[in-house]
Amino acid sequence: MPRTEDVALTEEMVRKIVREEIVSAFRKDPAAKRACLIASKGTLDWAYPPLILATAAAAAGLETAIFFTFYGLNIIHKDFERRLMVSPVANPAMPMPVPMPDLITAMPGMQTMATSMMKSMFRKKGVATIRELLDVARESQVRLIACQMTMDVFGYAQSDFIDGVEFGGAAAFLSDARKSHVTLFV
Amino acid sequence: MPRTEDVALTEEMVRKIVREEIVSAFRKDPAAKRACLIASKGTLDWAYPPLILATAAAAAGLETAIFFTFYGLNIIHKDFERRLMVSPVANPAMPMPVPMPDLITAMPGMQTMATSMMKSMFRKKGVATIRELLDVARESQVRLIACQMTMDVFGYAQSDFIDGVEFGGAAAFLSDARKSHVTLFV
Amino acid sequence: MPRTEDVALTEEMVRKIVREEIVSAFRKDPAAKRACLIASKGTLDWAYPPLILATAAAAAGLETAIFFTFYGLNIIHKDFERRLMVSPVANPAMPMPVPMPDLITAMPGMQTMATSMMKSMFRKKGVATIRELLDVARESQVRLIACQMTMDVFGYAQSDFIDGVEFGGAAAFLSDARKSHVTLFV
Repeated sequence: MPRTEDVALTEEMVRKIVREEIVSAFRKDPAAKRACLIASKGTLDWAYPPLILATAAAAAGLETAIFFTFYGLNIIHKDFERRLMVSPVANPAMPMPVPMPDLITAMPGMQTMATSMMKSMFRKKGVATIRELLDVARESQVRLIACQMTMDVFGYAQSDFIDGVEFGGAAAFLSDARKSHVTLFV
Repeated sequence: MPRTEDVALTEEMVRKIVREEIVSAFRKDPAAKRACLIASKGTLDWAYPPLILATAAAAAGLETAIFFTFYGLNIIHKDFERRLMVSPVANPAMPMPVPMPDLITAMPGMQTMATSMMKSMFRKKGVATIRELLDVARESQVRLIACQMTMDVFGYAQSDFIDGVEFGGAAAFLSDARKSHVTLFV
Repeated sequence: MPRTEDVALTEEMVRKIVREEIVSAFRKDPAAKRACLIASKGTLDWAYPPLILATAAAAAGLETAIFFTFYGLNIIHKDFERRLMVSPVANPAMPMPVPMPDLITAMPGMQTMATSMMKSMFRKKGVATIRELLDVARESQVRLIACQMTMDVFGYAQSDFIDGVEFGGAAAFLSDARKSHVTLFV
């Protein structure tokens, strides 16, 4: 027989307990502890957002993965420093020393100039380099996953990529992403 | 009066049950069973990611929808095979037989060349065509939704699109996306 | 002693109540009431999607924030009307009066022409201007957050931005995004 303090709980009392527990459970929603990013672009400017967001997510305690696909494979290629260029063409939003029509920005050498300009702007402002961000990412357990299908299409071998890269497909990405609130296609 | 085996549950016992049920409920979080993608770009290369991700999501058992908007309407246009081109300009990450400045990649005919090159690379590697991916998507119940607002802006009629396309607005997209973990803007 | 109607609940009865409450709780999942967008592009065409999606999300009752970073800072710059241009180069999906090779679309003046053309298309179809969308966003409590790191890199001051803009970093974005189902990188 229940003791006095163990009075049988009514349905109403149980529902109250349940609601309390649920509010607290949603605060600890496991999907709030995971971030899954796709890096699909292979230029210097678009290499920054996935690496900055992923390292910030890891710093905030999220289990984080970046899935590199299509042109994004450039970012984790061993030769990324030479491969990651920036094109001023067709980007009227890119800050240039003087405004230039695309016919000028398309001239030979302009891509190299725009790339140096961006690297120097970033360096002067103390922004980490791509190399540094890749190092921070790996040190903070951000998983770097190369998309096998696009590796095949573009003719890359596993040995073309920096150390620590894993290999997987869209299915692997989705099995993580479906459990993550933060899912971003960059 | 409760029988012996029906001893009144204490609050502590109820909380234990609740926590067990919640852990199991989060494993079956309905948001983990839905994927909502936006396809906003209208080139051959950017037609692939939303279709590959959506068909992979459907194969993994997710209720999946792609919302086609802006240039992305090209992908579900009846004439998508002629419309989906790829531009080598301003994409220093695009693999080309030889490196070319944008002034060359901007020459008449280069877009057609880049498009053929990409189609042939994809065919040689056994990657599905856009037509095949659209077929797989529809067979696997991926919902293809054309954005009505941008249809109006760009002057498209409902009859311009392939069979099976639905029509809706940003509100329709959001009413699904707010219940989905996987939400990607391509 | 429990009264007759207060018969002690069995574990089975409690589990049934819990499951009912959980189903109802997932319908009110707080993550389904939040949308966090990143606007990273600084052209007229790509200014539309984040503003349209964010104002639609706010209209649907979601707590909504847009994080403006990289070229996307253009959208909330005081001088956004002059800064937001559209480039026809390298966008074979852009509707043009006649098809043009990139060598032509790259000519001086074509960017201005393409920008006017898009503005006039949008106006004719009754689509809101960027100014109107920014007003609606602020009236409907969409938070507009400028990325401090890229502000520093591109040399922007807080006074360069329209009224109502907040300032924050990737960590601020993630602390909201991890609690949101809708997370989109535009």
